[in-house]
Amino acid sequence: MKTVPVHASRDYSVRIGAGLLSELGAQAAAVCQVGSAAIVSDSNVWPLYGESARSSLENAGFRVVHFIFPAGEASKNPGTYLEILNFLANNHLTRTDCVVALGGGVVGDIAGFAAATYLRGIPCIQVPTTLLAAVDSSVGGKTAIDLPAGKNLVGAFCQPRLVLCDLDALSTLPADDFRDGCAEVIKYGILYDAQLFAHLAGAGLAFRREDVIARCVALKRDVVAQDEFDTGVRQKLNLGHTVGHGVEIQSRFAISHGQAVAIGMAIISRAGAAMGICSPECRDEILSVLHTFGLPTSTSFSAQALYESALSDKKRTGGTVNLVIPQTIGCCILRPTPVAELKSLIEAGL
Amino acid sequence: MKTVPVHASRDYSVRIGAGLLSELGAQAAAVCQVGSAAIVSDSNVWPLYGESARSSLENAGFRVVHFIFPAGEASKNPGTYLEILNFLANNHLTRTDCVVALGGGVVGDIAGFAAATYLRGIPCIQVPTTLLAAVDSSVGGKTAIDLPAGKNLVGAFCQPRLVLCDLDALSTLPADDFRDGCAEVIKYGILYDAQLFAHLAGAGLAFRREDVIARCVALKRDVVAQDEFDTGVRQKLNLGHTVGHGVEIQSRFAISHGQAVAIGMAIISRAGAAMGICSPECRDEILSVLHTFGLPTSTSFSAQALYESALSDKKRTGGTVNLVIPQTIGCCILRPTPVAELKSLIEAGL
Repeated sequence: MKTVPVHASRDYSVRIGAGLLSELGAQAAAVCQVGSAAIVSDSNVWPLYGESARSSLENAGFRVVHFIFPAGEASKNPGTYLEILNFLANNHLTRTDCVVALGGGVVGDIAGFAAATYLRGIPCIQVPTTLLAAVDSSVGGKTAIDLPAGKNLVGAFCQPRLVLCDLDALSTLPADDFRDGCAEVIKYGILYDAQLFAHLAGAGLAFRREDVIARCVALKRDVVAQDEFDTGVRQKLNLGHTVGHGVEIQSRFAISHGQAVAIGMAIISRAGAAMGICSPECRDEILSVLHTFGLPTSTSFSAQALYESALSDKKRTGGTVNLVIPQTIGCCILRPTPVAELKSLIEAGL
Repeated sequence: MKTVPVHASRDYSVRIGAGLLSELGAQAAAVCQVGSAAIVSDSNVWPLYGESARSSLENAGFRVVHFIFPAGEASKNPGTYLEILNFLANNHLTRTDCVVALGGGVVGDIAGFAAATYLRGIPCIQVPTTLLAAVDSSVGGKTAIDLPAGKNLVGAFCQPRLVLCDLDALSTLPADDFRDGCAEVIKYGILYDAQLFAHLAGAGLAFRREDVIARCVALKRDVVAQDEFDTGVRQKLNLGHTVGHGVEIQSRFAISHGQAVAIGMAIISRAGAAMGICSPECRDEILSVLHTFGLPTSTSFSAQALYESALSDKKRTGGTVNLVIPQTIGCCILRPTPVAELKSLIEAGL
């Protein structure tokens, strides 16, 4: 097991290892008062890991209740959020009780937002069961739900009390879901770590799980520590996301987050190369590693359609978009881009 | 004009004086980027002050949009909250734009919560138009909405950029609404300030507006500064609120917040006297000042009914309720009370 300590407005640990789910109760008792625990999970994850989570918590003395919603990004909406809030209220959870988010990024985001706002905030434990959630949404304290106008338009910054990443859960992931997470793992290599990138390019899907996840978590931790409230350097984590969100919206979320981010990274790398910012070698290495992992690098949506959907994204300050563009592997720049330039930039990257 | 500076996780000022609404635009421009301003208001307040607010903001260079909802506590629900979020998204507000909450406590709470969570937080300016909002909900950064299970069960801590309290707006308040605010003003006297209490007992409804409001704001500021996230001394501000919320819920919000708090303070004073905590003189002075202001001191709801509704209140930690009980004027204690004792305590105070 590896432990990555996180120092934020509230300190917590991210623990990564095989078999950790059986320790959930004991670990929760170490960071929360032993009272009620509300597990929030989805229809895919609960049948696989729900009973393990429940029995571990009960063995540690928690009263356990659970709320399950239909799996999928489409559930990350205000309706599900409200159902969770009413569930917590109807089960009389108090400020010293806790929410356990058991699942992927959708579960972590919506359960985290409910925990952040129910009674103006109660403790939350994140138990990511996908690679994507393990390296991305369980670290940094961002929680969110979607609106019809766009993804993640509503949310709160709220640090979890603990993140428990059981590698056994990741090993049972469907191949496509695992690849989804790989897109984010690759992102960390492109952004910050040529050595990590080289390991991924060489090992492909057989990369060293515990080491790579711990490295990604530590990288994200260091960025978040510099910029907890996402006003500066943290925006680099949006590499591939501005255009990627456009892809997700255009596909009505039929294209997964990881695939969309892969497409977004490919487009921005090609556009960056066309603008003379990204070196041709860097662009080719990025496209190559995405192919190695079986991730898509192109889309049939038009530049106009992607542009319009990208505009509804929240990472916009007035009339500019802060785009993240690779220069070389391990080094990307944040480029404030006038909204008017975005469409031609996407066109150049398609 | 009086200015009360507030030092919280984000510093801001509360300005109190006549004619301040006409300065809204200039004051907003001093604390926010001049971009879009979304005024959120209700069907009572907007016809009275909407155009003044809008023209002041427009004269300062803001693009102004507005969202109006039906006046009343019944609107402080997840549906209205979601409508405001969609309104902000559909009008493309960004992180550097601002929300202006123009109205009473309901407007301040729901608009503040929307501003705190839209894009994970955008600037908010509070323009309280009731006495209650001026002394209570516009200070301290608490924002909230109600759930069917209880009042203020969902929300966030989020400091405004500025609070602008125009005394002219308070002078046009209906008498009952003004009395509502008086209940909170009296609360500050009971909790912290025998001199303020004596002024109120002597002057009645003719109390000195600017001085008294500024004093209440400063008192609340000092409490919040000690306990921004409401885990300790700030809980004293709940004097009269635990039972008061029970009254509100039982009446389905037909009894206003201020009246309910007055009833709650009366019940807890009588109960405190019966327990030997509150001096008989203190109890009588509290009942007397409430009468002077035309506020109610009793209710026909049963102890059982109030007990059940009070239990749904969020200010509960596990099996105890933190009750605030007056000892003498200016000095109250926080008493953790087992839930099982609450009913007999309410009975003693009816």
